Order: sequence, then C-alpha cells, then structure tokens
Amino acid sequence: MGSALAVAAASHEANDVTLIGSPLDSEIVDSINRERWHPTLKVNITDRITCLAQQDLSASLMDGANIIVIGVSSPGVSWATAKINKFEARPDCIALVTKGLVATDADSPPLTYADALSDSIDSKLLLGIGGPCIARELALGMPTFVMFAARDTELATRVRGCFQTDAYRISVHPDFIGLEACAALKNFFCIGVSAMLGAWQIENQTAKNPVAALFNQAVVEMDLLSNWIRAATETPEERQRRAGRSHVAFDLPGMGDLHVTVGGGRNSRLGTLLGQGNRLSEIVAGPMQGITVEGLDTGRQLLPGLKAALDCGSLSRESIPLTLAILDSVQNDSPFVFDFQSYAVSA
Amino acid sequence: MGSALAVAAASHEANDVTLIGSPLDSEIVDSINRERWHPTLKVNITDRITCLAQQDLSASLMDGANIIVIGVSSPGVSWATAKINKFEARPDCIALVTKGLVATDADSPPLTYADALSDSIDSKLLLGIGGPCIARELALGMPTFVMFAARDTELATRVRGCFQTDAYRISVHPDFIGLEACAALKNFFCIGVSAMLGAWQIENQTAKNPVAALFNQAVVEMDLLSNWIRAATETPEERQRRAGRSHVAFDLPGMGDLHVTVGGGRNSRLGTLLGQGNRLSEIVAGPMQGITVEGLDTGRQLLPGLKAALDCGSLSRESIPLTLAILDSVQNDSPFVFDFQSYAVSA
Repeated sequence: MGSALAVAAASHEANDVTLIGSPLDSEIVDSINRERWHPTLKVNITDRITCLAQQDLSASLMDGANIIVIGVSSPGVSWATAKINKFEARPDCIALVTKGLVATDADSPPLTYADALSDSIDSKLLLGIGGPCIARELALGMPTFVMFAARDTELATRVRGCFQTDAYRISVHPDFIGLEACAALKNFFCIGVSAMLGAWQIENQTAKNPVAALFNQAVVEMDLLSNWIRAATETPEERQRRAGRSHVAFDLPGMGDLHVTVGGGRNSRLGTLLGQGNRLSEIVAGPMQGITVEGLDTGRQLLPGLKAALDCGSLSRESIPLTLAILDSVQNDSPFVFDFQSYAVSA
Repeated sequence: MGSALAVAAASHEANDVTLIGSPLDSEIVDSINRERWHPTLKVNITDRITCLAQQDLSASLMDGANIIVIGVSSPGVSWATAKINKFEARPDCIALVTKGLVATDADSPPLTYADALSDSIDSKLLLGIGGPCIARELALGMPTFVMFAARDTELATRVRGCFQTDAYRISVHPDFIGLEACAALKNFFCIGVSAMLGAWQIENQTAKNPVAALFNQAVVEMDLLSNWIRAATETPEERQRRAGRSHVAFDLPGMGDLHVTVGGGRNSRLGTLLGQGNRLSEIVAGPMQGITVEGLDTGRQLLPGLKAALDCGSLSRESIPLTLAILDSVQNDSPFVFDFQSYAVSA
C-alpha cells in the first residue's frame, strides 16, 4: 500500500517521491531499480519515484520530507518509527497505513495505533486513511473513494491535495480515532463474514443471504466497537467537533472497506476456511502456514478490554454476537459457527 | 417470494397456509398440485401448503384468513388488492412483498406502496418486510436476518411469530415508510453499483475498489432519499416514535439488502450491461428483451419529485451523484458513466 500511495503522489508534478524498502523489501527495491517493475503489486513503476533501500535513508532526505507514509506490516511499525526518530528532522505529516489495535494493561478498550504510538510519534502529525482500496487497483488507476482523518482536520485537508488523483478521491472525516478503529476492525469482522462464504452452499454455489446478513451485522457491530474504542481516549475538543455520535463505521472506512475486504485477501481466506469446518490450528499448520492474518491479531488485542466491558456491563453480549462468535472460534480452536437463532428472538 | 414466505409460515404447526396463484401462475399451481414441485423456486413444497388457482379464492377462505401476503409483481398490485376487496372479510394483517415507488401529481416525493395504496388497503393493516432475502434461499432454509415494520409496531411484533424460523430471523424496526422506501430504492441503486461490475476490469477480472466505493455511496444516498420520502407523509406520532433521524438505510432493509441484490438478479444484470457501455434501448431490445427490471420503474417514479426537490433546493445535486448518474443513463439512453472526479473535490 505504501508503494501504491507513492504512485498516487508521483502523479502530481509538484511532488518529489522517494520509496524506501524495509529490510524485507530488498527484492522489490532491486526489481524497481533494475526494470521499474514492482513484483508484488505487479505494476510498472514510473521513474518519477526514486527507490532506495532502508540503509540509504539519510538526514538530507529526512530534512526535505514534508510527508512520510509508513506502509510496513504490524510487526514492523516500531522498527519504522525508531528509524524515523533516529533523525532530527520532523515532517509535517506521518501517514500510517498499517492498521491494528493494541490491548492495554488496564481493563479498558484497546488503543488504535494512533494512540498506542503517542510515545514515539507526535500524534498531531498522524494521518489516518480509511476506505475501500486494494493497493494494486490504486496503482493501476482504478477509481475509488477514501477518507483521510487526523487529530487536526486541517492537516488532513491540506495533505489530501498531495495524493488525490482523478481516480483516488479523498474526503476528510472528523472522527480520526473512529476511522482508525474501523480500519483495524474490518480485518477482524472480515473473518466472520467470509466464514459464510464457506458455511452455506446450494448445489456447490455459495448462498448469498447468510453473507449479506452477517455483512450487515458486522457493520452494525463495528459501529458499536469503534465508538467504544474512540470514547476511551477522546479529548473534550474532539467530542465537540464530532457533534454527537460518529457513524464512520457506516461509511467508507467501515462499510465500504469491509465490502472490498470480504472475498479477497488473507482475512477472507482464513474466514472461508473456518466456515468450511476447519480449525485455526489446522489452517495455520496447513493451507495458510506462515501467512500473517491481521484480523487475528486485532481479535486478540480486542479480547482483554472486551471481557472487562462485558463484565461491567458497558457492552452487552446480545449486541455483539458476531464479535463473540469470531473470538470463540479463534480462541477455542473450533470451526466458525454463527448461531442465527440467538438473533431477533421473539418477545 | 410469496411462495417462499408460505414455506416459512408452514413450518409452524399452528399455521394453516394456502398459496394462491395469480392468473400468470397456473403452471406453478399445477406443478405443485401434481408433484409438490415449485418450478421457478426449484424446491419441493411441503403438503402442509394448500395450493389454489386464483378463481378458487372463496369467501370462506377469506373469512378464515388472519394474514394475507401479497407477492405479485408491481403491475399486479392493483389486481391483487381489487381481488381481496371483492370480499367482505378483512384480515388482521396484509404483508406486501412487492416494492416500488409511485410518483405523485404534486411536486412532492414519490409515495411508497404503503402510502400509495391507502385508498384500497387500510394502511393500519400493512406489514413491510425488508432485508437480504433471495426467495429460493429462504425456501431452502438458508439463514438470514430481515426486518418487519408497520404503522403500528405492535402488529409487526405480533405477526413475526408466524413467520420466524430457526433460519429466517426477524427483528422489528420502527420506521415503516423508511423501510418501504429502502426496499424499493435498493433495486434502483443496484443498477448503478452493478455498473461497476461491468465498467472496470483488470486482466478480465472485475476491479473491486469501484464496486465497493459505489456500494458505499449507494447506501449513503439511500439514507438521504429514504428520509426525504418518509418525511413527506409521516404523522407527528410516527415522528415521535422514531425519536430522531432514522437510519434504516444503514441496516438490513438498505445496506443488507443491497449487498445481496448486487451481483444477482435482473437489476444487477441491467446495471452490468450499462456499465459495459451498452445503452438501455439496446439492452431491452436485446439480451433483456421482455424482462421487467423493477429498479428502472423506481427511477422513473423518483424523477418528477426529485426534479422539484433539486429546483427548490431541498436536495442538492452534490449529495446524490450516483442517483443522478443512474437517472442520466436511463433517461438519456446513454451508457452508465460515473464521474468519480466530481466526488470529494479538494477545497
């Protein structure tokens, strides 16, 4: 996704774009510098993008950087922030493409990266990006809508001009933490919705009603959980700016991104396999060996705070049946089963 | 869908279920009575369902009927209501599965059938049903979630006990007209979302970002239009019961039903063909000759009221770009083109 955003940025003549590989990306860097070919995105890369290995990141490059996009996977985030912090220069904006939640020690909701990284990155600089966006499609110029958000909405509005293209259309949302929470949660919920792709068949074709019913349920629960997560760290200023309950889950970072996530990618593949009756232990030892599934970690980070919230009654079990079904399946190493009967019980 | 609901109702021992064919359904009636086979649903029909031709509808049957489900297509609604009104007996509830809008003479929003039929059916008896539900899947017992609504919420709550099964899970929503509006609008919006299935390809595979972006946009616009439609006929009592703005579009009758509607059925097929660059006139003279597409009529009924609302400023063009793109395509007989650049213009 970092590379795809570099492509969008490079389409603006005014932008000078440098793409820097992590220690795991040396093949990609070599391939781009040799033949302008991105081997994982499978697209040609314009020569307007300078491509460097991480050891070539220099003080002068950092001095000139207005915007830094961090596009590493979850385990690489602390590496990336440490790398940036070794230099004195600070950019105007750091966009964090990596999405996830971090459980707290206390019995409170998990933190989004935006809050969890506040020790290593000035959170006023952080930009959140949410919405339906498969990286390869962005790099190929397929159109989509996304949302930017930041602690300071002005920052998001200023920065979008550097990335927006005719196809990559950006609006700005006031709920930064809600957007970050949805961007992480959609991977988690994708597992449960995609389980329906494996669970219900008619003559070897996937039944569509169960998928749509749990897609809907996922968005409704994402709304609940993202509001719960945001409320834990929101400042009074931010609360005022939202002017009421945020419904970012019912927009591009929630509903829109979940739509594209179900039916493609690792989270969806895991969910489908769980829905077909496989156990997590069988899947990670077999067809998905060595593959990181981000929604799994999001679920694990959700668990301690969620248990506490259920115990004290600030969330009810009845309001999050899909959340609990996904957690049950991955915690108890059992096939994914959703109890439709527990929903909409007659009075 | 009428037959599928009969299957759900017949699974309750306490229900006596009679399925009555319209003049167009004689083959279905014959097939069920000959071999308990429903030729369009392609399922076996339990012998707990009595199946009759319309001329066999009798006063004694009507006297004993607590609930009538009308499952005809749009052009058949007035036939069905006239048929019912020939008898003296009135049931406790009439569920109208047919969804559509009816333009008014005045410059006001179109009416849902619930309001448009108030001359021929006591609207206090009407039950609305919304949510993701392909009829065949319901008849085969695939699980789903739906919502019932009525002018009197008590009626919806009472009646759901007659239909709810282990797989067909029913909750009750307070916004009857909003639900009816969404159930009609989802066919219309399905045309525009499905156009993306035909418009953007990568190596002969459908690009997913544009579909998800317009799916999201469709739900956001469905929320606007359903609130606009409901506001025109809502009573003060109903307004109070809703306690604020309804978001039924962001639930099963809107988001959930649109999810299942895109990618299957007539509205989706028309949309895909329009997105591939075909004109409506070519499609109705060619691959979809003689096929009724309900979303097309919904668009036509929307048009006069929408024009008036845009002229007087009660709706803005900027808020409904997808609605206008679909209407442009079908009114001007041009291929469907969505102008992504017009969305999220930088400040």
